[in-house]
This record gives sequence, C-alpha cells and structure tokens, in this order.
Amino acid sequence: MTDRPFQDFYPDAMSYCYGCGRLNEAGLHIQSFWEGEEGVCRFTPRPEHMAIPGYVYGGLIASLIDCHATGTAAAAAYRYEQRSMDSLPAHRFVTAALHVDYLQPTPLGVELELHARVTEIKTRPDAGNKARVRKVTLEVDLLAQGKRCAAGRIVTVQAPTSMAEPNLTQPETPSPRN
Amino acid sequence: MTDRPFQDFYPDAMSYCYGCGRLNEAGLHIQSFWEGEEGVCRFTPRPEHMAIPGYVYGGLIASLIDCHATGTAAAAAYRYEQRSMDSLPAHRFVTAALHVDYLQPTPLGVELELHARVTEIKTRPDAGNKARVRKVTLEVDLLAQGKRCAAGRIVTVQAPTSMAEPNLTQPETPSPRN
Repeated sequence: MTDRPFQDFYPDAMSYCYGCGRLNEAGLHIQSFWEGEEGVCRFTPRPEHMAIPGYVYGGLIASLIDCHATGTAAAAAYRYEQRSMDSLPAHRFVTAALHVDYLQPTPLGVELELHARVTEIKTRPDAGNKARVRKVTLEVDLLAQGKRCAAGRIVTVQAPTSMAEPNLTQPETPSPRN
Repeated sequence: MTDRPFQDFYPDAMSYCYGCGRLNEAGLHIQSFWEGEEGVCRFTPRPEHMAIPGYVYGGLIASLIDCHATGTAAAAAYRYEQRSMDSLPAHRFVTAALHVDYLQPTPLGVELELHARVTEIKTRPDAGNKARVRKVTLEVDLLAQGKRCAAGRIVTVQAPTSMAEPNLTQPETPSPRN
C-alpha cells in the first residue's frame, strides 16, 4: 500500500481540501507517504508562492505542515489499530492547533521535503464501532536543499461529527441492508 | 492615510507575497486597516479554499492570520516611531513563529473578519539610521458571522538583511546623489 499517498484513502466526501484533496482541482494536492516511521511529503511550490522574490511564503509552509500532519495522523491511526488504510471506519483528522517556527528563509524554486513524526496518540476507551484513535500529535520538519527551514508541532483530532459525512463512521445502528 | 491598506506601503520589491503582495497577480491580496487600536482585515475565501465541503481549510486560515499580523506589525512600528507609513526606512516584518488554535470549523461562503492586537514591541537601542522597532508580537482573532473560529499568536521580526532589498533601509553611507 505504500505506493499510494495517505490522502488517496480519504473518503470522497473528505477529499476536497485545497491543500491535500485529490478531488479539489484548484488545490495543491499535497501527498504523504511512509518512509519507515516517518511520514514524508515532497512538494515544489509554484512560482507565485513567494514571500519576497526568491523565498517561499509562510502561509504555504504552514499549509504544507498542516496537511502533511493530518495525513500522517490518519496513516498512523490505521497503523496503531493494526488495520489497512482502506478499512472502515475511515480516519480523517483535522487540526486543533498548529505551531510553526520559521527558522530561516525557505528558498523558492527547489523541492521541499517534510518529515513528520508522531509524538503522541490518544484513544477513546468507549469507541464501540467508531475509530479508536481520537487524537494524534506530531512534529514536522521542513527541509530545503537539506537545510531545516521550518519546524512544526501539530495537534490533530478526528473530524468533528458536524463536519463528517455519514460514510466516515460505520452506522451506530446497523441498517437493514447489513 | 487610513483609507489605504497597510500593505500598500510595502516597498515594491517586498510586495510580491502570495498572501498580501499587491504585485502578486495570482495572490490573495490580503488587506489590513486600523480600526482604533486593532488591525482589521476582511476576506472572503474563494470557493476552492475548502477543507471539507462547507468549511474553510486550515492553511488559508493560517495564511490570513500570518499576513494580517505582519501587516499590522509594520503599521504598529510606524505608529510607535511616530512617523507616517510612507516615510523611510520602510518597515517589513516577517514571521518568526506562528501559533493557531482552531476553535471551531470556519464556514465557507461568508466574509471572514480578523482582529489583530499588538501585545509586545521590542526595539534596538543602537538603531542608527535603521528602523528602531525590530520585533512585534500580536494576537489575532478570526471571526465568521460573529463567531470566533480561530485564534493566533504571532511573533514577527524585521525581514532579515539577506531577504531585504537595498531600498528597505536608508543607505548606511549617503550616496553621491543625496
């Protein structure tokens, strides 16, 4: 399964994110993969994604860290629950808190590389037929030409029910066709 | 001067930011204005700026908070130094650290309103003919339909010399034509 990005496994209704949704035609299509214990994303900013000529703007850096972290959170939750990324209930995490330290200007015109590490996983004991993992905390480094230009800490949580489509969780009560 | 956005006073060479540069044709053109002691920005996300259908994606929220904070930092620095925004040396702040708490999903399709407050200003005692204010810390609230959906804390610093164009500061030694 490692040849497909984490974001490919988001349910269709949750795949419209401007940052990482495969179904958002105007979006950035951020993709994340496992490399050992790290989630890794490679992304080359568009020429217009500048802060000051020659450098990447901070909002894109925040977006990359954010979407890569939520993607890695989902993949880590499947791993933790020892099931495949195409099994149900689907995992879809959203960001509760995002912190980015901009360590040095990030050059524009080169491929950026993001490395995400999970630092904490929290579960709910009364999960029933819902997903057990409810919260994943991660650290992300953003590198350009081997230099660490930004560092992120992200707290992600399962998409709140108000945002989620019915197909994200198995039904509370089995429907007649089950 | 309050009828022109803060970002209009950035030197041309520093006006290409994807988030707030008036010269970046593909960009978001974030604009900030004083309303009393607060920097205020109003922005309506594009339909494609979604996280999940109906909600704004977190990367845009981070971008809005970021660019609005750096703009308000520049305006606050001119105020602190008791000079107009078209005087030299020009102020242009970049983000050192960005923290965003996503408090509740932000609805898409409505105008967002951001309110920035300066919480700390640090100066350099040996400024000479450079700008005196070197660091501005701010808090930003993002509201949709009157509800506080996100809250940011941002540390901004003067753009490092490596990023700055020569026209950002007055020459160290007066040039012949002066």
